[in-house]
Amino acid sequence: MSDVKTQSPAANAPGDHPRNMANAIRALAMDAVQKANSGHPGMPMGMADVATVLFQDFIKLDPANPSWPDRDRFVLSNGHGSMLLYAVHYLLGYSDMTIDQLKQFRQFGAKTAGHPEYGHALGIETTTGPLGQGLTTAVGMALAERMQNARYGDDLVDHYTYVFVGDGCLMEGISHEAIDLAGHLQLSKLIVLFDDNGISIDGKTSLATSTDQVKRFEASGWHAEHVDGHDPDAVREAIKRARASDKPSMIACKTIIGFGSPKLAGSEKSHGAALGDEEIAATRKQLLWTAEPFAIPEEVVAGWREVGKKGAAARAEWEKRHAASPKAAAFDASLTGDLPADFAESMSQYRAKLSEEKPKIATRKSSEATLGLVNDLTELTIGGSADLTHSVFTLTKGMQSVQAGHYDGRYIHYGIREHAMAAVMNGLALHGGFIPYGGTFMVFADYARGGIRLSALMGLRVVYVFTHDSIGLGEDGPTHQPIEHLAMLRATPNILVFRPADAIETAECWEIALTERHRPSVLSLSRQNLPTVAGGASENRSRKGAYVLREAEGERQVTILATGSEVEIALAGADKLAAEGIRAAVVSMPSWELFVEQDDAYRASVLGTAPRIAIEAAARFGWDRWIGETGRFIGMNSFGASAPAPLLYEHFGITAEAVLAAGKELAR
Amino acid sequence: MSDVKTQSPAANAPGDHPRNMANAIRALAMDAVQKANSGHPGMPMGMADVATVLFQDFIKLDPANPSWPDRDRFVLSNGHGSMLLYAVHYLLGYSDMTIDQLKQFRQFGAKTAGHPEYGHALGIETTTGPLGQGLTTAVGMALAERMQNARYGDDLVDHYTYVFVGDGCLMEGISHEAIDLAGHLQLSKLIVLFDDNGISIDGKTSLATSTDQVKRFEASGWHAEHVDGHDPDAVREAIKRARASDKPSMIACKTIIGFGSPKLAGSEKSHGAALGDEEIAATRKQLLWTAEPFAIPEEVVAGWREVGKKGAAARAEWEKRHAASPKAAAFDASLTGDLPADFAESMSQYRAKLSEEKPKIATRKSSEATLGLVNDLTELTIGGSADLTHSVFTLTKGMQSVQAGHYDGRYIHYGIREHAMAAVMNGLALHGGFIPYGGTFMVFADYARGGIRLSALMGLRVVYVFTHDSIGLGEDGPTHQPIEHLAMLRATPNILVFRPADAIETAECWEIALTERHRPSVLSLSRQNLPTVAGGASENRSRKGAYVLREAEGERQVTILATGSEVEIALAGADKLAAEGIRAAVVSMPSWELFVEQDDAYRASVLGTAPRIAIEAAARFGWDRWIGETGRFIGMNSFGASAPAPLLYEHFGITAEAVLAAGKELAR
Repeated sequence: MSDVKTQSPAANAPGDHPRNMANAIRALAMDAVQKANSGHPGMPMGMADVATVLFQDFIKLDPANPSWPDRDRFVLSNGHGSMLLYAVHYLLGYSDMTIDQLKQFRQFGAKTAGHPEYGHALGIETTTGPLGQGLTTAVGMALAERMQNARYGDDLVDHYTYVFVGDGCLMEGISHEAIDLAGHLQLSKLIVLFDDNGISIDGKTSLATSTDQVKRFEASGWHAEHVDGHDPDAVREAIKRARASDKPSMIACKTIIGFGSPKLAGSEKSHGAALGDEEIAATRKQLLWTAEPFAIPEEVVAGWREVGKKGAAARAEWEKRHAASPKAAAFDASLTGDLPADFAESMSQYRAKLSEEKPKIATRKSSEATLGLVNDLTELTIGGSADLTHSVFTLTKGMQSVQAGHYDGRYIHYGIREHAMAAVMNGLALHGGFIPYGGTFMVFADYARGGIRLSALMGLRVVYVFTHDSIGLGEDGPTHQPIEHLAMLRATPNILVFRPADAIETAECWEIALTERHRPSVLSLSRQNLPTVAGGASENRSRKGAYVLREAEGERQVTILATGSEVEIALAGADKLAAEGIRAAVVSMPSWELFVEQDDAYRASVLGTAPRIAIEAAARFGWDRWIGETGRFIGMNSFGASAPAPLLYEHFGITAEAVLAAGKELAR
Repeated sequence: MSDVKTQSPAANAPGDHPRNMANAIRALAMDAVQKANSGHPGMPMGMADVATVLFQDFIKLDPANPSWPDRDRFVLSNGHGSMLLYAVHYLLGYSDMTIDQLKQFRQFGAKTAGHPEYGHALGIETTTGPLGQGLTTAVGMALAERMQNARYGDDLVDHYTYVFVGDGCLMEGISHEAIDLAGHLQLSKLIVLFDDNGISIDGKTSLATSTDQVKRFEASGWHAEHVDGHDPDAVREAIKRARASDKPSMIACKTIIGFGSPKLAGSEKSHGAALGDEEIAATRKQLLWTAEPFAIPEEVVAGWREVGKKGAAARAEWEKRHAASPKAAAFDASLTGDLPADFAESMSQYRAKLSEEKPKIATRKSSEATLGLVNDLTELTIGGSADLTHSVFTLTKGMQSVQAGHYDGRYIHYGIREHAMAAVMNGLALHGGFIPYGGTFMVFADYARGGIRLSALMGLRVVYVFTHDSIGLGEDGPTHQPIEHLAMLRATPNILVFRPADAIETAECWEIALTERHRPSVLSLSRQNLPTVAGGASENRSRKGAYVLREAEGERQVTILATGSEVEIALAGADKLAAEGIRAAVVSMPSWELFVEQDDAYRASVLGTAPRIAIEAAARFGWDRWIGETGRFIGMNSFGASAPAPLLYEHFGITAEAVLAAGKELAR
């Protein structure tokens, strides 16, 4: 452990301006947590000195223009320390971060939520709280910066991404994925400041870890060093070295959690609870901070406001460059995220072509074909895969790989890192200028869950391409066969889950996913070949989530609901029923979420009043909503098995014969 | 990159015994994958030399007694190379791994599933396939070995855990959690052999990673080195050094994927597809391997069988020590996994006491109290938490921390590593001698998903303690508030999900979880205080999954279904309905899975025929099964928010008033 400057009063003497600027953060954090009687004062108090140096001397942002595209990004990955962010935003003068908001910390409807929530207040670049997500999302932002830079040049895109991380972020597995990828891609404008306080919730981190973090980052190609996090000069010099490095940088800032608190500094007791009035008073005394709760001396506020003035000047300079840049129009257009004007028409023509050609291919292949068209129509899309490129078919013709020094590519080899793929895609989407999509096997949505949930919570346009979406993948067996995953994804708020039945629905679902600006989408795609069944319609029928694919000849006696690869089986079942004189309608349900959004009348017209059978090679869970108490479900009741796919469908009874049998029993 | 011995015929000359033993693995892998026309030949061919050295010179196992407790554990973390394991088991003479089974590779019902499946064949120590799980589970096994050793001494417990890992295992985030934890705990009998072939599915690993793995492992306190994986002598010496080290060891074995194949060696094309008859013939020629497909020369088989003879001798020695050991009886008892004879009676008395005392505490606190009793009754239980010990209350009085050199503890500080916690618990359970439980906030089940699924797939007695199980956690906000997690867990096959309503149900659910030998359990527990509502019954009513907690006075007009913290609200709602003259029954449903397993008559008696209202502070997804098409659901339709819990319940309308309103509308 490096030496840490003691908390001597001298270091906090009045007139010691930097320390007082930091103490403003400490005081606001203590006060707000105390008023809420909930929250985490320890981190803001520990990292206040580092934050002060970073914002005062380095960060480029303009609080009056919080969305200025070339601002530096600041991510608080240890999001429980949210009061640091809110305090800084108040001190910087963000218009919506008033002292009243700080007094409303963690209260209903306040901008000052328990953890920083993207969209709740100006300048919050991403939602953080689940540890390690912020770090990895920041890798995506730093990568987006380089990729935009490669397209539009230094004049328009040239900013840093700074991240605060804690011990938790660096213990979580996702941190390895982030570090490995960022090092590989040499994201030299990514600078991570590690709150190296040696404390986590259970107590000393030495209870659970012995990793030498500097050595660890170096092993992945980073510039890394230790610094005393309470020595502003040392921090400043370290950040300078980081900015000068041609590698991403990690600065392990040795800090004291709860710095300034006579009794609780250095203890996990300052991590996640209010300090108490008495200890806050003692801390004020020790910090020589005499201002009342929630009051900040004018000269301290003035000091912080200088940051914004510098930022405003930098922004003015940028505006000039922007005005002069021949690439400004294209750059601005990329930030709108608008698809080209002929997008809908092109997709419509493409569907018409498929209607004629009637390909019999796996929907993962249909997805590839659609992406071939999409990626020609727009340059916004950025593809990628977690090392399954040639299985999930996310790489289309002409796409070059994004690599260190070659940031003009459009395809990211995420490596065998599903979690990082999700969080990096979040970062690409948050940064602006791109629509990321990334592929893996559906079962490995498990590994990416933490990132997927944040895509949904933040409402980001990110598309997950999940292939091999059932026992239809065959021989790889139960570890690779999703069962509960559709339920898991459909149960998650604010995600569109698509399970297209054929090439046409795949194109339809892609079109919706790309035009849906405030929700992530999942495409659930087959490994096995599927015939074209949805031909002949001019409109995008998947938009309504479910539709009658084949009406019964005459009044329905039974309605068969199916998705994806089981629509073919539903149709075959309907044929068998017809052969026995039973009139069955077949409904394709590519997206439950969109179907739920339709009006009652439409839903009733699709579902009908006849008894219903659902067929999907997945868990029943959730299907009762559609089949009712008297319906039947044909699908999986257990994990899968290792065998060729047709045998598995037979073994698990997901067949046209099963549809026939159920239909005969149910038909009214 | 270190030099790799070329594939010269000389290195494969007949009579070059070790190479021919390795070539037997290669030939069987090629042949089986070719016959299945599915599978992964590249890894077995690349790691055959390493496997041969490891098994021939080091591994201690007795194929005739595959469950001998003190055998070395061998884990194939890169499970797609399953043919290596099956070939080795055939060559070693495991009774169930016949040549016929190898010919049935990846076919329905065969022991030779696509990935190694625990329980499918003798000697498969764990299910692998999802990358990184095997490595982390092996950390659990190696830790279990030390913990058993601390209890029963070297005479009874003294074995190694060997793991093969690939690039994928080491790119996945979970690997960091495993490496960090194993290094911290100084698990010196854990030896990892890394198939450092520089190839993954997309092509060269240099597409996606630049990490220096040796340096990375060293940063976490491991002994690590490079070796030429095709130089048996070098591998042997490296393993010797690893065994001598007082740290866990990683040996990066530089190998050639698909070694021996003239055209495909060194290429990703040998990773995941059959080589083809022509290339197999050419490979046979290059390897100077003249035997027919699936035929192994007698002297080669004889060479492999020597391994088992050595193992049998070692086992015989162990049996002698066992017979002489005063600790043998206790050791044997620990392996049965039996709870003490008075367990059920003690739990029953405890429930009776709660019935009288009627505590009003959070179910996380009730869980702590139950665990206090359980941990006194049996020493099998091993607690732990992913750094939320004092929030999830998994540490009971007198439990000591497991630390390097202090393996006699019973509490594991897993660090901020939920995924490792799950996989390590799997390893503890697989090793035998322990019942692991571990706690975190329910929302972080997301981070542990990969490990939880394997608990379920393998049917292990592992207990997940997931507290803060709804918006009831309050101010931490939407990133910390589970919404879809109960659905995700309930949709997963072979898990018991418990959401107890009070202290009594919590004790009941713990009792079931601990006595359930072949399923993992999840306990979903509240942060907020809950009154005792389930008093007065002598039997464990949670065993039936759901039961009528309060019957209506007279014929039911409405039935209210609830779980966990919402049972209190359901009762209050029933009171309000009663005040308006509406007769409502309240059903507590602590476990859907157990309720599904009851007979129709019981289920019908509980659910009744009156209209139903369900109340749960979570997603509706799945509830339609219980409320039917005409029922009502009171719960969450979105992500949560940051505010004090009572306000959130009010805001999201999860209240007794909402029950009253719904009941008035529905009551018949």
